[in-house]
Amino acid sequence: MIQKGLEGVKICESSICYLDGINGRLYYRGIPVEELAEKSTFEETAYFLWYGKLPTKSELEEFKRKMADYRELPAEALGILYHLPKNLHYIDVLKIFLSIHGSMDGNDEDLREKAIRVASVFPTILAYYYRYSKGKELIRPRKDLSHVENFYYMMFGERNEKIRLLESAFILLMEQDINASTFAALVIASTLSDLYSCIVGALGALKGPLHGGASEKVPPMLEEIGSEDRVEEFVQKCLKEKRKIMGFGHRVYKTYDPRAVFLKRVLQEHFPDSKLFRIASKLEEYIVSNKIKNIYPNVDLYSSVLFEELGFPRNMFTALFATARVVGWTAHVIEYVSDNKLIRPTSEYVGPMDVEYIPIERRDENG
Amino acid sequence: MIQKGLEGVKICESSICYLDGINGRLYYRGIPVEELAEKSTFEETAYFLWYGKLPTKSELEEFKRKMADYRELPAEALGILYHLPKNLHYIDVLKIFLSIHGSMDGNDEDLREKAIRVASVFPTILAYYYRYSKGKELIRPRKDLSHVENFYYMMFGERNEKIRLLESAFILLMEQDINASTFAALVIASTLSDLYSCIVGALGALKGPLHGGASEKVPPMLEEIGSEDRVEEFVQKCLKEKRKIMGFGHRVYKTYDPRAVFLKRVLQEHFPDSKLFRIASKLEEYIVSNKIKNIYPNVDLYSSVLFEELGFPRNMFTALFATARVVGWTAHVIEYVSDNKLIRPTSEYVGPMDVEYIPIERRDENG
Repeated sequence: MIQKGLEGVKICESSICYLDGINGRLYYRGIPVEELAEKSTFEETAYFLWYGKLPTKSELEEFKRKMADYRELPAEALGILYHLPKNLHYIDVLKIFLSIHGSMDGNDEDLREKAIRVASVFPTILAYYYRYSKGKELIRPRKDLSHVENFYYMMFGERNEKIRLLESAFILLMEQDINASTFAALVIASTLSDLYSCIVGALGALKGPLHGGASEKVPPMLEEIGSEDRVEEFVQKCLKEKRKIMGFGHRVYKTYDPRAVFLKRVLQEHFPDSKLFRIASKLEEYIVSNKIKNIYPNVDLYSSVLFEELGFPRNMFTALFATARVVGWTAHVIEYVSDNKLIRPTSEYVGPMDVEYIPIERRDENG
Repeated sequence: MIQKGLEGVKICESSICYLDGINGRLYYRGIPVEELAEKSTFEETAYFLWYGKLPTKSELEEFKRKMADYRELPAEALGILYHLPKNLHYIDVLKIFLSIHGSMDGNDEDLREKAIRVASVFPTILAYYYRYSKGKELIRPRKDLSHVENFYYMMFGERNEKIRLLESAFILLMEQDINASTFAALVIASTLSDLYSCIVGALGALKGPLHGGASEKVPPMLEEIGSEDRVEEFVQKCLKEKRKIMGFGHRVYKTYDPRAVFLKRVLQEHFPDSKLFRIASKLEEYIVSNKIKNIYPNVDLYSSVLFEELGFPRNMFTALFATARVVGWTAHVIEYVSDNKLIRPTSEYVGPMDVEYIPIERRDENG
């Protein structure tokens, strides 16, 4: 039997995430994700995913200090920034810096320490490359700001009162069981490769349009639709042309994605006049009420509108997703390698057997 | 049921490779690998794996010309070479350059063309970084030399009459069904990410000591043994300390790895006086004849001795493996995405449910 796509195949036990795709529920270590997105912070949820318990006040203080300390890039990595082409995709920029970082970070240390270090440095890499490639001066990380506040500050040089919305979105995106990018990280981890290699592999998987890459395709699609009254026409055209509608459908959720529900409510409250939001809502309404292909909006539909409204460049959207998901990737790697088994499936060979190696002189030029 | 490690799980149909682990046989598209290692070339075997047929004389000529044309790095990528730290692992160096390369290589082209381009540039990246990090002048690629000859020439600035042995080793290492690194590439490819991201992920997996990374650990182990008469003592010590013996054992081969058999014969013929070879042979003899853990030598045991005798630096061994395996990785990606399905397994959730989010003020500092 061929288990293509490994749909429903359980590759390990895990106590990180429970995803109920039938009822549209998502829990991080037993807590509903909406509750964390509402009440918790990036640092606290990351701590919870990595350590398996909510931190006490003093633990959280120490942990936040540590993440702030890890924000700066090593000088050797920073050295190449100004020699990079200015048109790289942000996911590739992360891959480049993390490969350098990883080569210089010894193998002798606790995996969790490394995970904290990597997650802490993501916003710095993105903000530095953003400002460098736009010809703006770099803004150094500030230790007095939280992880997400500092990210926004390093990007735009100012504070934003709506930053809590980005933090909620990051909490929602932080973890999602063994999705394709997390699985890529585990396959790499299972050879006992270094943690940076796992993350770099996961970044590559996230980049694909059937995964995180979809988020970058949502705003252009909404702009193509142009206005709420053209939603029906657009959907019918997509159906006719067998074109995929971005921001809808999910391998596991067979109903509303709870993250999409949460973010829609956030947008409704804070950006009710956003044109993209209005088109996205209308698109959802039309597709769901007409049971088009039985698909529902997924997180990308609304996270991309939020990222857009907060002023982030579109080709950074997948990297924003990664800035959150790196916590889930590393939590799963740490859990998996604690009882490691090399992930090495096989294939069903359907090619020819006993093929003769014909010397080149005897090969038919017309064959 | 949990299918940890996916042992024996068939994740797709494939007509690239047949691996008979019980009888120790390996076939590329129906031809025994020994026959290709004996009679074929890097370019011809790569063509065979990518196109599914042996090339005619004119097809091979055109193909070799194309690979030679693709050898040079894009100027933008070369621009960062001189700003990299000099102590990076060669696998990380490949990841860095391929991430830049990938960001600048459009998405509009035939996957096979991209595969040919990437495989062609591997030796250039390795030789450039090798010479730069050793403070030597770069040697530009030469179009009149074959892929493997040119690699050696760019590394050392001279020709080597034993280069055919390296070419045979590369042919043997080129493809091996859905091993961990190839699987990492497929997981990434299944999100429809770019080919460079697949290769960068595969490189990360290959780096692990349970995969290609083992090859770098073999020579230090053989040196630690020191002489043939200390093999028994070493093995007994490893057994007592539950230490892994590098270069032995394989997930699929339950007998002699045919690649190890081939390379042992090559070494016997060309480097019979090599000290490392003599220790490796003795180690094989002792472990196999005493049925130690029922393991057999794998390809790393002898490929690493060959790489060593040809003068390559040890921390490049995994990257040499990758220089060959990139053909197999890309052949599988091309085959898989032609009938793509997102690879997205799941886990068995074993953690707590319905955990209460306790506000931080109420958390026990001693809990």
